[in-house]
Amino acid sequence: MIIVLRPESTEAQIQHILERIAELGFKPHISRGELRTIIGVIGDESKLRAEPLQAIPGVEQVLQILKPYKLASREMRREDTTVEVGDPATGVKPVRIGGGSLLMIAGPCAIESAEVLETIAGQVKAAGANLLRGGAFKPRTSPYAFQGLGEKGLQILREVGHKHGMPVVTEVMDPRQVDVVHRYADMFQIGARNMQNFDLLKEVGMTRKPVLLKRGMSATVKDLLMSAEYILSEGNPNVVLCERGIKSFEDSTRNMLDLSAVPNVKGLSHLPIIVDPSHATGRPDLIPSMACAALAAGADGVHIEVHSCPEKALSDGPQALLPSQYSALLKQLRRIADLMGKTF
Amino acid sequence: MIIVLRPESTEAQIQHILERIAELGFKPHISRGELRTIIGVIGDESKLRAEPLQAIPGVEQVLQILKPYKLASREMRREDTTVEVGDPATGVKPVRIGGGSLLMIAGPCAIESAEVLETIAGQVKAAGANLLRGGAFKPRTSPYAFQGLGEKGLQILREVGHKHGMPVVTEVMDPRQVDVVHRYADMFQIGARNMQNFDLLKEVGMTRKPVLLKRGMSATVKDLLMSAEYILSEGNPNVVLCERGIKSFEDSTRNMLDLSAVPNVKGLSHLPIIVDPSHATGRPDLIPSMACAALAAGADGVHIEVHSCPEKALSDGPQALLPSQYSALLKQLRRIADLMGKTF
Amino acid sequence: MIIVLRPESTEAQIQHILERIAELGFKPHISRGELRTIIGVIGDESKLRAEPLQAIPGVEQVLQILKPYKLASREMRREDTTVEVGDPATGVKPVRIGGGSLLMIAGPCAIESAEVLETIAGQVKAAGANLLRGGAFKPRTSPYAFQGLGEKGLQILREVGHKHGMPVVTEVMDPRQVDVVHRYADMFQIGARNMQNFDLLKEVGMTRKPVLLKRGMSATVKDLLMSAEYILSEGNPNVVLCERGIKSFEDSTRNMLDLSAVPNVKGLSHLPIIVDPSHATGRPDLIPSMACAALAAGADGVHIEVHSCPEKALSDGPQALLPSQYSALLKQLRRIADLMGKTF
Amino acid sequence: MIIVLRPESTEAQIQHILERIAELGFKPHISRGELRTIIGVIGDESKLRAEPLQAIPGVEQVLQILKPYKLASREMRREDTTVEVGDPATGVKPVRIGGGSLLMIAGPCAIESAEVLETIAGQVKAAGANLLRGGAFKPRTSPYAFQGLGEKGLQILREVGHKHGMPVVTEVMDPRQVDVVHRYADMFQIGARNMQNFDLLKEVGMTRKPVLLKRGMSATVKDLLMSAEYILSEGNPNVVLCERGIKSFEDSTRNMLDLSAVPNVKGLSHLPIIVDPSHATGRPDLIPSMACAALAAGADGVHIEVHSCPEKALSDGPQALLPSQYSALLKQLRRIADLMGKTF
Repeated sequence: MIIVLRPESTEAQIQHILERIAELGFKPHISRGELRTIIGVIGDESKLRAEPLQAIPGVEQVLQILKPYKLASREMRREDTTVEVGDPATGVKPVRIGGGSLLMIAGPCAIESAEVLETIAGQVKAAGANLLRGGAFKPRTSPYAFQGLGEKGLQILREVGHKHGMPVVTEVMDPRQVDVVHRYADMFQIGARNMQNFDLLKEVGMTRKPVLLKRGMSATVKDLLMSAEYILSEGNPNVVLCERGIKSFEDSTRNMLDLSAVPNVKGLSHLPIIVDPSHATGRPDLIPSMACAALAAGADGVHIEVHSCPEKALSDGPQALLPSQYSALLKQLRRIADLMGKTF
Repeated sequence: MIIVLRPESTEAQIQHILERIAELGFKPHISRGELRTIIGVIGDESKLRAEPLQAIPGVEQVLQILKPYKLASREMRREDTTVEVGDPATGVKPVRIGGGSLLMIAGPCAIESAEVLETIAGQVKAAGANLLRGGAFKPRTSPYAFQGLGEKGLQILREVGHKHGMPVVTEVMDPRQVDVVHRYADMFQIGARNMQNFDLLKEVGMTRKPVLLKRGMSATVKDLLMSAEYILSEGNPNVVLCERGIKSFEDSTRNMLDLSAVPNVKGLSHLPIIVDPSHATGRPDLIPSMACAALAAGADGVHIEVHSCPEKALSDGPQALLPSQYSALLKQLRRIADLMGKTF
Repeated sequence: MIIVLRPESTEAQIQHILERIAELGFKPHISRGELRTIIGVIGDESKLRAEPLQAIPGVEQVLQILKPYKLASREMRREDTTVEVGDPATGVKPVRIGGGSLLMIAGPCAIESAEVLETIAGQVKAAGANLLRGGAFKPRTSPYAFQGLGEKGLQILREVGHKHGMPVVTEVMDPRQVDVVHRYADMFQIGARNMQNFDLLKEVGMTRKPVLLKRGMSATVKDLLMSAEYILSEGNPNVVLCERGIKSFEDSTRNMLDLSAVPNVKGLSHLPIIVDPSHATGRPDLIPSMACAALAAGADGVHIEVHSCPEKALSDGPQALLPSQYSALLKQLRRIADLMGKTF
Repeated sequence: MIIVLRPESTEAQIQHILERIAELGFKPHISRGELRTIIGVIGDESKLRAEPLQAIPGVEQVLQILKPYKLASREMRREDTTVEVGDPATGVKPVRIGGGSLLMIAGPCAIESAEVLETIAGQVKAAGANLLRGGAFKPRTSPYAFQGLGEKGLQILREVGHKHGMPVVTEVMDPRQVDVVHRYADMFQIGARNMQNFDLLKEVGMTRKPVLLKRGMSATVKDLLMSAEYILSEGNPNVVLCERGIKSFEDSTRNMLDLSAVPNVKGLSHLPIIVDPSHATGRPDLIPSMACAALAAGADGVHIEVHSCPEKALSDGPQALLPSQYSALLKQLRRIADLMGKTF
């Protein structure tokens, strides 16, 4: 950690800072330049980070050198993490993600009925999807919108998914839902709006079930890794990250898909990362290109909403692909996966 | 609601759309222009909003005319809402916000000990603050940072606040904490990271205790009002909004304070709105100017972090004002309040 | 165009609006709903757009239906535009972009000397680049930074490029430089900071030399197309767009690369679009992945900065690829191009 | 300047960096920590800044300690700069800005005719405005929109302004217009879209006429000060900054007004700064509150568009205040100015 002092800082202030650092158990190294005095602090930066050094009179800025996350960092683990989704005890073969295996998540935004889900599941499975998604608890911007089927939806999801040989993923929004979602789903999804719902992160961190952690709309890549750290630090190593678009001034897409987050995360962390072009763009005409680009950028999979009748979907219909569109897209994605030396 | 068709939409597609609208119980009005065909739909737009009309083939865009919130809207209630914070049964005089009465919230970021809070409370009360704040459950970006004292912190907050004749506000992060926070606090705070934690909003909506709802870092003014609608629609009318900065590319302040949100909200809604320059800027050198600007913009109060020893604060010390700075600021704020015909 | 009236608008106001529309030569269609009155206006929206209808008392909002650009729009021209860069009279074979032909622009940020450029040109040509870039007039944030070699740089660029059989592109920053740049370069580059320098756009629009128009850091896709419209409307049809990152709150990359702009532009416009991952990310470790993703997203080429000795570059060294890295990248890009049915 | 090395950097890389620094004439100070090695560099950071140290293998990050602008910095000049606008030789009394004197700029977006400007000028002068504005060269997003009256407009502006005893300000968009604008106007305006049109900045920097420099929509406060530095470094000390809103995801206002830029700039620089709530919000219902907030935040003036008939304005009518609204606003601003110890 490096402390830069104000040009007008007094000798008394400098002494006070040096004492404060020593008091905290660190060794300060002072370097007096022509224009600025700088104090380097040697020691465990993670402890020091908690200290409000910036608040000491005479301090201009505090520069942190080390990353604030540890377990999620590439430095902690050089090789890529792979995550297995699904429990062999259910009779469904688990899916692996990472290390060249791609996670192809597909399904409707919300679980509407067994019949609708059955139709969609059969079609996405035939196209090549390996994990079925569907929301039972829905985070809707409006209190007047369809809020999901709850536990009944979870039952349908599991039944339909496992019948088609697919593990299932669904969103958990509230720490009180963790138990019931744990019973039915093979993977938790933490939605973008809950990426910094720290109590929820801790709760899923206390299980060992895989977690799909979506990037918040105002989260930096560092923020995303800090949220992963919450889950990892509770003991659950099975975290898969998901880039799904951030907020920007561009108003022709729902969000701004940050594909650079894929190689960026791969440099900083050992965790797998997939991309959700459906929520990122909100536009079916852009989803296929962005899915192709995601794999070419090195993503470990894609998450795509598919609905057999978007115009009657109870949630987010306008951003769903038709099963036929999804099937055509997966043909193209398979060719790109080949080229990248990956499979699904 | 207005549906704009693609230039290449076929007659069959147009007929399908008209039938779909009729099927949903609405009356379509078609208008064929030289370059675009447009369908106006008369009827309760709030019902129609849930329908994925955008997903129907041939549709280019769907334009919504009405606002998606109702109870929070100025159209629902022309006069300003006033909210009372505090329960006379506790022996502490409630504070009113709105209609010319300003809410001056002050206190440390986190409750650290009875002694520290006692010192700060005495000083901010003397300066003119009328509501004491302090966090017992802290949403920290890092799992390794101080997470708050929990219920013990709530006890300290209530005791110290009420001793000084101030009602108290504290953050609730998890639906499971609503009961315990309800027992100790006079007002719930929903933090920026939880503005779209819809289960939490519903839970505080089911109480009648006032709620301070902070704007999320990626929330538009409309999103903020939709989140207020969640609380109002559960039956709790006591919502106070708080602007506290949004994300932007400017990197010299912690967030971007959107003061235009103040008159903007006042035009759209009857709810009171206050401003938090501490979290918005993260810089004590900017807080006083932004607090003055907030009142001049028409805000119903300000929320400011104050700490007697920022350099030893356990959370967010660098953004706290010293009690003496707070006291000087309140003198200036009183002059602006006078000029605006308001009091605290 | 659709005019939505305020709920409290008076009959006199409505009459005034109807008269104003008629006065402007348009036909208003009024539709009185339960909650809002709406006026549709039939006629040439481009003329109407200039009128400040929003300023008329009683008007709540004015919704535009048609796009504000014409010549740049896909509706004006269904098939993709192809652009030829280079003049056969110079003895250098022109390069085609669009319709399956990719533009592979490479070279240093600034032209530093004939020797350095010579080295780089030979290497990027060998790797597969087909257009040489280099800046002679540099838009530098600091007045104290290297500002470019000016006309001498242009001479070097042309000589070195043509010697290696490559047409050349270079930035023009000032309308007064258009003549001299026209003499030496095969393509004008309009930089991001000048995307809305309308006098400059008009000036290059009056030539027939191809223009590489970079997206501004705060420009929407619509803004970019409006700037292209400036050039097209002066008579120059040879416009190639370039996505190079926009501003966002993410602080680990220089800008936020918006790859969704590629399919987005392809839907709205017939113009070719390439991607510049060098300026977008500012990070050599991310550039190769983003270049691959760009082609997979459907881009018509990539623009990459290459320097034989980045640590001695006079401008933007840290974001340059080494010639060997560029060469390895082009091998991968060739495989993706094949898969997309394109060549370079 | 501080250079942080990668954890895996080799001894040979470290030696190379040390040699490179010495070669550049600086003295490196190496400090080997447990987790990172850090090199401090003592010497003139402004020279070092131009060097691409980040590009040297083994370097993780380069942290700059000093600000990249000098002449604009508060460190260069402790006391506030005041600027005089207007030439006594014209018979019009100059206006002073800074040091307690407020600049109240008002007028229409575009100069449309002598008659319209005459009406508006009389009214804003009577209300208290002290500088008349009006555009003769208009930067319009669409090539089909009204582009301004050019030199004829300048003549009208000067004549009308001086008749009413007001100096005048108008935008210059192109270096070739600097001469003609210099002849007629008392102050140059550099618009937001040209804040980084460096050739234009240099050109106005070579005159001694005051410059109103508007912040670009994607410019940080540091970028704004760097652009001021361009003008100052050419020898023109008469720079007035103007905050006018930046780009954000909030879609209910035209731009996001960053009022924190006012105290932020005042801490970093000695230059005066005013606020333009008209372009920032684009909404007459928000302009008065934001003008009040600007003065309360410490701004040295406000820039407001006023039109006697907004619904017939040729440019930006919907964001203009009526003269009566402007007059009412100035009454309120006078009270806030009093309170701040300032006058206009």
